[in-house]
Amino acid sequence: MIRAYAAHSAGEALQAFEYQPDALRDDEVEIQVEHCGICHSDLSMIDNEWGRSSYPLVPGHEVVGRISALGSNVRHLQRDQRVGLGWHAGYCLHCNQCHRGDHNLCQEAKGTIINHHGGFAERVRAQATSIVPLPESLDAASAGPLFCGGITVFTPFLDYGISPTAKVGVIGIGGLGHLALQFARAWGCEVTAFTSSSAKADEAKSLGAHHTINSRDKAALEQAAGKFDLLISTVNVKLDWNRYLNTLGPRGRLHFVGATLEPLDIGAFNLIGAQREVSGSPVGSPSAIATMLEFAARHQITARVEHFPMSQVNDALQQLREGKAHYRIVLDADWN
Amino acid sequence: MIRAYAAHSAGEALQAFEYQPDALRDDEVEIQVEHCGICHSDLSMIDNEWGRSSYPLVPGHEVVGRISALGSNVRHLQRDQRVGLGWHAGYCLHCNQCHRGDHNLCQEAKGTIINHHGGFAERVRAQATSIVPLPESLDAASAGPLFCGGITVFTPFLDYGISPTAKVGVIGIGGLGHLALQFARAWGCEVTAFTSSSAKADEAKSLGAHHTINSRDKAALEQAAGKFDLLISTVNVKLDWNRYLNTLGPRGRLHFVGATLEPLDIGAFNLIGAQREVSGSPVGSPSAIATMLEFAARHQITARVEHFPMSQVNDALQQLREGKAHYRIVLDADWN
Repeated sequence: MIRAYAAHSAGEALQAFEYQPDALRDDEVEIQVEHCGICHSDLSMIDNEWGRSSYPLVPGHEVVGRISALGSNVRHLQRDQRVGLGWHAGYCLHCNQCHRGDHNLCQEAKGTIINHHGGFAERVRAQATSIVPLPESLDAASAGPLFCGGITVFTPFLDYGISPTAKVGVIGIGGLGHLALQFARAWGCEVTAFTSSSAKADEAKSLGAHHTINSRDKAALEQAAGKFDLLISTVNVKLDWNRYLNTLGPRGRLHFVGATLEPLDIGAFNLIGAQREVSGSPVGSPSAIATMLEFAARHQITARVEHFPMSQVNDALQQLREGKAHYRIVLDADWN
Repeated sequence: MIRAYAAHSAGEALQAFEYQPDALRDDEVEIQVEHCGICHSDLSMIDNEWGRSSYPLVPGHEVVGRISALGSNVRHLQRDQRVGLGWHAGYCLHCNQCHRGDHNLCQEAKGTIINHHGGFAERVRAQATSIVPLPESLDAASAGPLFCGGITVFTPFLDYGISPTAKVGVIGIGGLGHLALQFARAWGCEVTAFTSSSAKADEAKSLGAHHTINSRDKAALEQAAGKFDLLISTVNVKLDWNRYLNTLGPRGRLHFVGATLEPLDIGAFNLIGAQREVSGSPVGSPSAIATMLEFAARHQITARVEHFPMSQVNDALQQLREGKAHYRIVLDADWN
């Protein structure tokens, strides 16, 4: 039996829950969970915001722990090795996306918390391909958020050939944005934080921002016209995107890793005139995660986290719901 | 004096018009116009649709002709050499865009028909940098449209590293689209034409399309889900862009070279999930135009044009206004 915490219906508090896993498959790995970050999408899944939730639902997809069991075909990982698991717990491994290393774009990729029990648990299982070893120099207790939030904001740097000479803006300084600032700074870029919270402006600088812009200050946005090569938007609110587009220089890119369901309302001529691009991406492939971890280790990039014992998971979720997470919450295993 | 045809106020028929040019500048070239294509943006400028027109306005920015005069500093062109001139008649030559070869993104680029007299004339002048020699093997009488329509649809292939293995869709088969089909086919791609006109489906195939999709057939669009790597939209009408986005595979790009003023209404999750991109671009740099002309010459890419004598410019404009141009109209000089 695996002990866990599960929601039993949409929006409900989590309760202690036990389940009997199937026999470990040849290509699977079981992880003894040491730490598990809480991502905003755990809340979305608990609340069935996307209509994709099934209950009982065990959240948790920013897992760090040690391998406790290995399927018979898994040769590249060892028992007790420290590893992490993110949004995806498996891929089809035979589609064109998987073959070319874009596993995260596999249409049959299995979500760690979608019809699968996640990491708010003693142990969690996943296809070995989706498991990535944690570099020894990374602090295990704060590394969980790198496996979802971290890779999400790292992907645009890796995939779009962003130059260290680029001017990068990060919109929204929260769980994702505070990592994006660190990656952008370590990448060698000139970094600007857009935040509506003046309290966060100083912190943004401590996280790597050279400059901050108050996102509510229209004049400041206008002054930044034509400045940026890349804007990464991490927010879940609708902003005036054409105003942000105008802060992009020629060939600049506005990239979404967070979003709302409302349409983006983008003016085509704002794209055409200066040859701008708008794009989005979801997490990253196992190869990209490994690359990101190595980069994070070399540059001492770490999530700033608050810890809760896993037994206080509901208090932790409430903290996140109230927007008080600073910047990411990690649950630490405290099973007795 | 230079004889020309000019609109004297918004939407008016053109009238014979003469003007005295300033002394030829050191960096300028004068072209004796032999042929001049008519682009939809000539109509937009005649009608002051963009609020940027000044009158008398001499339209015409798809010019082919021979050099009749050279400024004293122009060393790389010769008198009587056959050349072409497109949307831009000059650049600042000192901004970052000009320095890196993106002259067409120069904020001070001078429009050939914006506060400058264009090619519906005996002669036209432009900064030598904006003039591109016409390869000898290209037919001068039909080459004009390559200098605006042609480069506009060629740019995405050149700038986004489109692979000949790509599946490319062209939305709208008119002045731009009929050239896009030819470029896509010559580029080695699998080519699909989206058109609402069944009459154009067969013609689209003769222009290079392997497949056609009726853009009004929602079921056909749904069947094409995930198929394309690149869609080039040449239309000036609002379509259901999210439906088109869904025909893009992972990392696919929807690129606008035509547009309306209405917002694009793009769903962010349609970008994020499959890492798609939306972009736009305006014409191309002199270097890109030269590359395009060489490619067009090697692959026998030619605009399909109807000819009017320049003295019948108003009949030609009316033909275009009525959507009857097939596919591009070229005015031939008939000054006596």
